Amino acid sequence: MAFVHHRTARFGDTDPAGIVFFARVFEYAHEAFEDCLQAGDLPLQTMLAQADWAMPLIHAEADYRAPMRLGDRLAIEVALASRSETALTLAFTVRGADDGKTRATVRHVHVAVDRASFAKRAVPPEVLAAFVRAGVAEG
Amino acid sequence: MAFVHHRTARFGDTDPAGIVFFARVFEYAHEAFEDCLQAGDLPLQTMLAQADWAMPLIHAEADYRAPMRLGDRLAIEVALASRSETALTLAFTVRGADDGKTRATVRHVHVAVDRASFAKRAVPPEVLAAFVRAGVAEG
Amino acid sequence: MAFVHHRTARFGDTDPAGIVFFARVFEYAHEAFEDCLQAGDLPLQTMLAQADWAMPLIHAEADYRAPMRLGDRLAIEVALASRSETALTLAFTVRGADDGKTRATVRHVHVAVDRASFAKRAVPPEVLAAFVRAGVAEG
Amino acid sequence: MAFVHHRTARFGDTDPAGIVFFARVFEYAHEAFEDCLQAGDLPLQTMLAQADWAMPLIHAEADYRAPMRLGDRLAIEVALASRSETALTLAFTVRGADDGKTRATVRHVHVAVDRASFAKRAVPPEVLAAFVRAGVAEG
Repeated sequence: MAFVHHRTARFGDTDPAGIVFFARVFEYAHEAFEDCLQAGDLPLQTMLAQADWAMPLIHAEADYRAPMRLGDRLAIEVALASRSETALTLAFTVRGADDGKTRATVRHVHVAVDRASFAKRAVPPEVLAAFVRAGVAEG
Repeated sequence: MAFVHHRTARFGDTDPAGIVFFARVFEYAHEAFEDCLQAGDLPLQTMLAQADWAMPLIHAEADYRAPMRLGDRLAIEVALASRSETALTLAFTVRGADDGKTRATVRHVHVAVDRASFAKRAVPPEVLAAFVRAGVAEG
Repeated sequence: MAFVHHRTARFGDTDPAGIVFFARVFEYAHEAFEDCLQAGDLPLQTMLAQADWAMPLIHAEADYRAPMRLGDRLAIEVALASRSETALTLAFTVRGADDGKTRATVRHVHVAVDRASFAKRAVPPEVLAAFVRAGVAEG
Repeated sequence: MAFVHHRTARFGDTDPAGIVFFARVFEYAHEAFEDCLQAGDLPLQTMLAQADWAMPLIHAEADYRAPMRLGDRLAIEVALASRSETALTLAFTVRGADDGKTRATVRHVHVAVDRASFAKRAVPPEVLAAFVRAGVAEG
């Protein structure tokens, strides 16, 4: 099960070696996360406006498999890789939209916290419901 | 006559005031330029690979009319505002895709140069042909 | 009279042509603005926290004179180019720190507004005082 | 043993929550890497110009411990965490320059390859020598 976000590798993302600067891949993944939330009817701007909870990112990692170059059309799959009571791990696979080959994989870990105290709390059910609606988790 | 590029304002583009950081608007315009060239069958990667000429940017400016916020869907119009023998001015109008209201206007001036000597030269006819094919200039 | 900010052109700022991507120059200028405000004892974070006024950017422009490359050490001069009752124009000159040659010039226009109504208002005297303390305006 | 790079968290790096956007931390770490190489007399621009080898990044990860806010002065320590015949792992610790508290930790894995074939090869001795000169590895 996965949500797919499409984007193109841009001139401003590419480095003197002509390939996408490694840190941009985290931005690409976050964009896919934003579109996934939007597809699940819980846009990030709505999530950020929640009064009593937040889902900050506590870990991010990427493995680079093949270079992405200016003009490459990319398909970024979003999947819910794992979940615990208080955290979610999202797995992103960045593929060439034309050749299907994996260019990079990215993992983001978000933890649920009480907005006032920053204490860990259970992942809000509306977040899980959004991922179900977006097609990245089973209902 | 205009080419239109669509994109969404992203979390990573927005600042502590909740609006798109002013410098990002130049990246949005450059993306629109890249898609316009692609539509004109002269992708930027092809242009950069030309042996004997280049079209560096010598001036960029933006006027900010109304804030762009996280999640805003934007329609960026590209037009060829003016041209001389050796230079082209592109005008970008960033509008809300839903309300049509102008958020910002951007202008980029590109000059044609000989790649080896960096001396000014006439704008290559293939560049003008690409803008005609993309629908931003008359044939 | 000018305030000078030093920084290095970074790998993540440079494009496939090996030179600083044009939009980054606006970020370099804004950094210099931030350090100038800090030197004037009115850090940007303090300015953003003002209850009744704000100084949004309404115009930005840059002229590119010579390429900046990875590792180039830059000296960015900040000057108050002009002021009206309700607006300030800052002029930035980006030079090579070693050769003193101008690489780019940037202008930012900030307007003073009432934070609630967004109506134009007089530039707050504490802003002018900060620029005097930073050495970019006469007392 | 560590090399320390200082920088300030910038307005353009901070997100609507008022904290540094997570992907920027990878750029901060890469800057520290660039300054470390410079201190070791092997600037990145020199490394990129090597005819027969390259050291591409194959993995990057970050753990976020405490928020970084606009204007925060940061001290980024660079250490050579581990090395194998063909790879190096750099560990970056981002601390508050004033309070010494850890804000984030970052790890980058670089692999040595033959530039033409992209086959793995031994880490060039000049790279290790640069890290010794920069004070992040023992001679």
